[in-house]
Amino acid sequence: MHPNLKLENIRNVLIRQEETIIFALVERAQFKQNKIIYSSAGIPIPDFDGSFVDYILRGTEVLHATIRRYTSPDEHPFFKDLPDPVLPAEAYDYPIKKTDININNHIKDIYINKILTAMCVAGDDGQYGSSAICDVAALQALSKRIHYGKFVAESKFLSDKETYLSLIKAKDKAAIREKITNKNVEKRLIKRVALKAATYGKEIDLTAPEQENQKQKICPQLVADIYEKWLIPLTKDVEVDYLMARGC
Amino acid sequence: MHPNLKLENIRNVLIRQEETIIFALVERAQFKQNKIIYSSAGIPIPDFDGSFVDYILRGTEVLHATIRRYTSPDEHPFFKDLPDPVLPAEAYDYPIKKTDININNHIKDIYINKILTAMCVAGDDGQYGSSAICDVAALQALSKRIHYGKFVAESKFLSDKETYLSLIKAKDKAAIREKITNKNVEKRLIKRVALKAATYGKEIDLTAPEQENQKQKICPQLVADIYEKWLIPLTKDVEVDYLMARGC
Repeated sequence: MHPNLKLENIRNVLIRQEETIIFALVERAQFKQNKIIYSSAGIPIPDFDGSFVDYILRGTEVLHATIRRYTSPDEHPFFKDLPDPVLPAEAYDYPIKKTDININNHIKDIYINKILTAMCVAGDDGQYGSSAICDVAALQALSKRIHYGKFVAESKFLSDKETYLSLIKAKDKAAIREKITNKNVEKRLIKRVALKAATYGKEIDLTAPEQENQKQKICPQLVADIYEKWLIPLTKDVEVDYLMARGC
Repeated sequence: MHPNLKLENIRNVLIRQEETIIFALVERAQFKQNKIIYSSAGIPIPDFDGSFVDYILRGTEVLHATIRRYTSPDEHPFFKDLPDPVLPAEAYDYPIKKTDININNHIKDIYINKILTAMCVAGDDGQYGSSAICDVAALQALSKRIHYGKFVAESKFLSDKETYLSLIKAKDKAAIREKITNKNVEKRLIKRVALKAATYGKEIDLTAPEQENQKQKICPQLVADIYEKWLIPLTKDVEVDYLMARGC
């Protein structure tokens, strides 16, 4: 089996991505919701059809596309029609099947309308550029994590081809979803990310009395909820879609 | 006094920037040194004169310039000849004197040749794009922190104009440097960032035995050293240069 498909290696990648996601969320949480930056009518940009955040996100993807970010099997852009790389193509290891599965629009919708609303203080602090730059980091981290479901699914498929093939053939998505689910792993994951959020979001103030030292930059339960309500189910969506698209 | 110049508010900004800096360093530390991305000859980019990291850093600055990042008094670009904003100019509060002080070349040199060498495992893991994107975040955070010395200096100046004016007039840089130095604040800062690095860089593994749970993603003493050897002295350089350029 390709090393990138060993379930233990995949889990380690996903675990390391938790830090990246939590850091990005803690960074964004220092600013208010700033809803104006998510609506096309909010801050009109000349010659650009979209929101302020779309403008920064697309601009970042245009740049990153030129260094071939999106030729990597674990990267998925939010925008189409990105430029070709300026660097010669790299002979990437491509251990999964190529599919056109990309649920970034859905991820962006949930991020803006659910996660930000729950995470950031309501209102407007004028920190539009800083907020948008944090949003780009957070969206890219969430997208990477969720689409890593393709690697997870391929790994699980290879470990029990026969069963998966019969479920795929029967188009039994519910049974596939049940088979890829490991409730114990999920419970441990949720417990771990809450502990990480509590640790990485801790206010550290040498002068404050001990009990005041417990302020948090982000609510650990919220991070646990984000994983439970969105990240885990969306990753499973990708896994099921991937297996259905994979076929035999 | 302008609220952005109150020393207490400035200290709070600098303290919050510590998290941003430490998160960025922890993120970069997961990859090897990847020296090839810092040399112009390393990964040649068509029609671009500079290293792979320069290409990403400049491209990011080009994008951010269009949303007027560098018209803000606390932002300083690494590159010149950036495009004009596409958005109308904002009536920024500009509570400090305008100067052309920008020590980003020096910051970049120290980051690449001192900080990265001490922080990352030697060698090449091929993670060029990911490393470079972390570098951009780290360089921007370091630059912002160090150039915030302008706000610190203006605040200190306003609190004791008479003394500063006589030192500036006498061009006594050594005496200015001594006057802006507060050894107790520095000691507390260094202690605090070491504690933050220990907390935010902690490996969290629910399944590992307690003592193995103490692995760190970044050495806390290294972060303390980065502040003591580079960030604090460079901020003071900016403060002294600012006061000399400020004049009366």
